[in-house]
Amino acid sequence: MTDALTAVFSPDFLERESARVGALLADYVRRAQRREGPVLVQRSIEEILAALDFDRAVAHGGADLAALVATVLDNSNRLHHPRYFGHQVAVPMLPSSLADLVHGVLNNGMAVYEMGPAGTAIERGLVRWMRGKIGWGDEGDGILTHGGSLGNLSALLACRERVAPGSFKAGVPSNLVLLASEAAHYSVARAASIMGLGGDAVVKIAVDDALRIVPGALSRACDEAARAGKRVLAVVANAGATPNGAFDPLREIGAFCRREGLWLHVDGAHGGAALFTGRYRELLDGVELADSIVCDMHKMLGTSTLACAVLVKDRAALAGTYEQYAPYLHGDEERQGVDLSKLTFECTKAQLSLKLFFNLALVGEAGLAAHVERLFDSARRFHDLLARRPSFECFGAPQANILCFRIGRDSQAQDHIRQQLVQEGSFYVTRTTLRGESWLRLVIMNPRTSDADIEALAARIEALAHAPAP
Amino acid sequence: MTDALTAVFSPDFLERESARVGALLADYVRRAQRREGPVLVQRSIEEILAALDFDRAVAHGGADLAALVATVLDNSNRLHHPRYFGHQVAVPMLPSSLADLVHGVLNNGMAVYEMGPAGTAIERGLVRWMRGKIGWGDEGDGILTHGGSLGNLSALLACRERVAPGSFKAGVPSNLVLLASEAAHYSVARAASIMGLGGDAVVKIAVDDALRIVPGALSRACDEAARAGKRVLAVVANAGATPNGAFDPLREIGAFCRREGLWLHVDGAHGGAALFTGRYRELLDGVELADSIVCDMHKMLGTSTLACAVLVKDRAALAGTYEQYAPYLHGDEERQGVDLSKLTFECTKAQLSLKLFFNLALVGEAGLAAHVERLFDSARRFHDLLARRPSFECFGAPQANILCFRIGRDSQAQDHIRQQLVQEGSFYVTRTTLRGESWLRLVIMNPRTSDADIEALAARIEALAHAPAP
Repeated sequence: MTDALTAVFSPDFLERESARVGALLADYVRRAQRREGPVLVQRSIEEILAALDFDRAVAHGGADLAALVATVLDNSNRLHHPRYFGHQVAVPMLPSSLADLVHGVLNNGMAVYEMGPAGTAIERGLVRWMRGKIGWGDEGDGILTHGGSLGNLSALLACRERVAPGSFKAGVPSNLVLLASEAAHYSVARAASIMGLGGDAVVKIAVDDALRIVPGALSRACDEAARAGKRVLAVVANAGATPNGAFDPLREIGAFCRREGLWLHVDGAHGGAALFTGRYRELLDGVELADSIVCDMHKMLGTSTLACAVLVKDRAALAGTYEQYAPYLHGDEERQGVDLSKLTFECTKAQLSLKLFFNLALVGEAGLAAHVERLFDSARRFHDLLARRPSFECFGAPQANILCFRIGRDSQAQDHIRQQLVQEGSFYVTRTTLRGESWLRLVIMNPRTSDADIEALAARIEALAHAPAP
Repeated sequence: MTDALTAVFSPDFLERESARVGALLADYVRRAQRREGPVLVQRSIEEILAALDFDRAVAHGGADLAALVATVLDNSNRLHHPRYFGHQVAVPMLPSSLADLVHGVLNNGMAVYEMGPAGTAIERGLVRWMRGKIGWGDEGDGILTHGGSLGNLSALLACRERVAPGSFKAGVPSNLVLLASEAAHYSVARAASIMGLGGDAVVKIAVDDALRIVPGALSRACDEAARAGKRVLAVVANAGATPNGAFDPLREIGAFCRREGLWLHVDGAHGGAALFTGRYRELLDGVELADSIVCDMHKMLGTSTLACAVLVKDRAALAGTYEQYAPYLHGDEERQGVDLSKLTFECTKAQLSLKLFFNLALVGEAGLAAHVERLFDSARRFHDLLARRPSFECFGAPQANILCFRIGRDSQAQDHIRQQLVQEGSFYVTRTTLRGESWLRLVIMNPRTSDADIEALAARIEALAHAPAP
């Protein structure tokens, strides 16, 4: 092997560079936690490639890894900065970050048990633990997969095979509809499109002022579908709607679905984490009536992206969908463990389980609960701080850790202010459209975000709103 | 925050644990490279959970991270062991492993540019580089996604929208068929199932003795589909078939597809890596005629799982498929960079680009080429070694780095031998079914696998074959 190839497989390289890169990353976290530097930087693609000496590095190699990492850090967002409240991705707990390193070196797949016993065992342990929290007792099964979009698709495919048996083999019937909250995440409509139903087959269920499904509207939507000769594939409810974190009334919806024999899928990508808390578990009251649930670990459960748990009540639902013939994988009769590829879309299956387990093993259930509760609590307190300022209008009180508000009523003005915050890097704030108008949106993901940070944000927004146009 | 929660967000914890975990991993790699210990261990799920003290750790926390990692290592496969030739996943180059750590700490998404400028810039740089290697010149676009199954699905969805415009919105027509090699990976049939066509809509194109598409069979399959009133969604060819690494004759197939106006999708999850070599580039002769290609970075390009490049010739094909309305993501007009979520299934987009870039930046294009060529070369040499032993029958000479062979002709005997090798952990070998019979299958992924390792494997298999039944 060439010297460079020898080096990149060398344990000495790994030992040295993990310490160097670890130290650089620690320094990045340290400075971010101290609120040093901007929350985010926005250079152009060509500037960043030039800073990395990209073309030369690719052509000739020989770069210094730590120097590359330093340049990457200089051009990345600082989620560990307390003034980050941008998107629904975790400020990762660092045991999960180290799980990424372990996975990166081991690269143990888990399509079949023999490829990765440790990762498989841990995944089965976590699924058992989650099933218990849902209240399914001995029922249920589940799988970890890359992200909530794939999670929603996976659950809805399992449901499609149940509602329209043989679809996997013979194709999808043309009269299926999906009933989903008006506030459903776009991955739900996308799943309908991918599955061959088409986005038009998503019937939107009306929501109230807080973006929660109105149960009467669900019943009406069902009746209309029946009158139009449609069959309902599933009802999709939110446990933590993306725009504002709203929780649908799961017990009422679940009872309706049970009566009508409908599959209830709960998109708990964000708010499913309330399952693992004490004080906020009631937001999910009735969740045990669901047939399938997704919950992202990389949102409220403190892991890096992507990592989603897909849980189904009927143990046979996933297996009936995904088990296909792959002779180079499944050939033997007698073996240890369980072959997870039979339960999931992904043929190569990464050790996602390590991430959540390492977090849990360090902080325990109570620590994870305290983390989620703290973020939910903070959003309530920050809402009160903003509501007290007369310049601001809040979009209702938060159920989860997402806050929508605006200054004045002009949509363009909200967008302009947000863009200025992003450009100056002082705070990371997102936006959304609610009832056709723009609102600013905070997702409180960082346990270090303080009342003072929110007061500083409010003051900065007021200053930008009152500044003369450039 | 509780002490445990404070610790898991602490930069000091990160600095200390990355060095400790890095040292443990380095030791694991070091011992594996020296051929110490078994290649793989196969304990039961409950044994592993007990060794991790799983239930107590989850309930109470307080575990020592390094101790957990040590237990995980004890129950994992050793891909770095030269006697690993199990599955088509990389023995990771360690810069890519460290990219996992960087991602694990930064957790910069890339759905919109502002979430992760560095990762986005690098991804755009890599896609530009790959387009050039395909020979598309200034044409083409691409995206990185989690794995080849999602890659194949993504490309076929882009194609579906092109061939049957409006499917995304209105649902899929019932007369689409997919023409795919008899040796296509199961994710192709699965994609057809997921997309609503149904697995029965996959028309299998006959292959020759080496599992390569017979061009005449493709033409006949097309005619038959037309006579039956079917529309061809796409032709799927292999660049590195999963069972034996066979490359379909892309120039002939591509010319046919051009004449007939058919979308050609090349599943190069494994063998697409030949693009980046000198001596094996000819295996992909004609690849520029394809409309879409997938190539996994976690197979031959030395990254950990999952990381796949999906490349399309028509720049508008991905964008026309995936761009949907997500107001909390896309609202502003003026901004830096490019928002990759508009090109891909995944809503939260991880920094997969760092993995391949870090490898390339250390070894350069020539180093990556040398790595792929070395593995392909080794398989040819190992084939000759096995072919010289009269006990063995080889399934043809390898085109890539996958070798199929058997000892005797009894299928059960091959399976039994493989199972014994797995149980004793001496070598990791897989199996496949070819023409209805079992064959042993080696995937040469480890640059340290030597002729002596293959000779030792052959001797061990002969011994097991001749041992009296237990």
